[in-house]
Amino acid sequence: MAQLPEYAIIVAGGSGSRMQRDIPKQFIEVAGKPVLMHTIERFYKYNPEIRLIVVLPKEQLDVWRELCQKYKFSIFHMTVPGGATRFGSVKNGLDAVTGDGLVAVHDGVRPFVDLTTIKAAFEAAATYGSAVVAVSPKDSIRELTAEGSRAVPRTKYKLVQTPQVFQAGILRKAYEQPEQEHFTDDASVVESIGETIMLVEGSYRNIKITTPEDLILAEAFAREEL
Amino acid sequence: MAQLPEYAIIVAGGSGSRMQRDIPKQFIEVAGKPVLMHTIERFYKYNPEIRLIVVLPKEQLDVWRELCQKYKFSIFHMTVPGGATRFGSVKNGLDAVTGDGLVAVHDGVRPFVDLTTIKAAFEAAATYGSAVVAVSPKDSIRELTAEGSRAVPRTKYKLVQTPQVFQAGILRKAYEQPEQEHFTDDASVVESIGETIMLVEGSYRNIKITTPEDLILAEAFAREEL
Repeated sequence: MAQLPEYAIIVAGGSGSRMQRDIPKQFIEVAGKPVLMHTIERFYKYNPEIRLIVVLPKEQLDVWRELCQKYKFSIFHMTVPGGATRFGSVKNGLDAVTGDGLVAVHDGVRPFVDLTTIKAAFEAAATYGSAVVAVSPKDSIRELTAEGSRAVPRTKYKLVQTPQVFQAGILRKAYEQPEQEHFTDDASVVESIGETIMLVEGSYRNIKITTPEDLILAEAFAREEL
Repeated sequence: MAQLPEYAIIVAGGSGSRMQRDIPKQFIEVAGKPVLMHTIERFYKYNPEIRLIVVLPKEQLDVWRELCQKYKFSIFHMTVPGGATRFGSVKNGLDAVTGDGLVAVHDGVRPFVDLTTIKAAFEAAATYGSAVVAVSPKDSIRELTAEGSRAVPRTKYKLVQTPQVFQAGILRKAYEQPEQEHFTDDASVVESIGETIMLVEGSYRNIKITTPEDLILAEAFAREEL
């Protein structure tokens, strides 16, 4: 069997509000360049032939182009304007995926994903159709109930990260559905058309830079490895 | 009503294995002194009258005494040898709580707890009997099932931190039970005697230093605030 083409839809929809910054979090500079550039580089390093689709809010496309010039960022990628929600943004990115292939969806603000994790997720998706990176929770978990809350066994749960990788046909079919409120990630979208999701072990380093605390950690990681 | 005496049982049972260090994680130096000293200081700052009970593995008690001398650590506290499990350690600490009062149980390796969080937890426990600090998960959550896993709505879950604060009588009664495998924190122990647990909003800064990544974050936080 010929190798299927690989795609990465890198979704960056942040406005910066939770980060208490004026600049969208994907554009915040870490270790000398915007977070989003680090993220793109990881996928490029994993596979220089990967087809990179970067989804950004429409009003940020010009800024991104300027940043790419300023930082002499030369990794080839296409940009796509995002939708009103993450669901809409992934859907727009997916329009750029034609024919057969394997499609990773990844958060633009997860720049510390390991190449081995990306590889494992693509391999699992090639075999099983759908694969999602996840880690075990470190904390005890409580479930909210009508009466208040109750302890649940944490070994029964996984915290989901990205990449989430799918065979193109499966992902396309899943995103033909109308959006539903419980779609918090691509796995939940794909699952709702009856597909089974394989879990791939992630890493605690694969953080999503969302809050000011995360940015501190990102700077520290970056000093170590970027 | 007279103010109830306040206790803090600070449990530090770590051996350092997950940290890939020879030194137990509670003794690792952050911002110039061992993590455990920072943790104790937070409770002392919250209430200089608080009765501090530090639970450590028996074989670490001498090392701790030497560290206190070396760092001229002068906050008054008693030390208690830990048990074979966290349950046993809290139980040993609880033996030092006599009569009525409010008892916080806190991880020795959570040095970044806010004073306002400690206060809120004590106040909630004074009113409702039991209070536990928790935060909303940032990631999507999947529940492991016999068939594999399934997406569950993350808004229905909370990740539990410490402090967990209880009226002394409730905590004492809870710890008279035999230990059970699903006891992963004090809330689950107390809940199993039929008590209701109030949730108090925590902070993403209130990390438990468990892995090398956490230590990097701790160093960064410490540079900011300690």
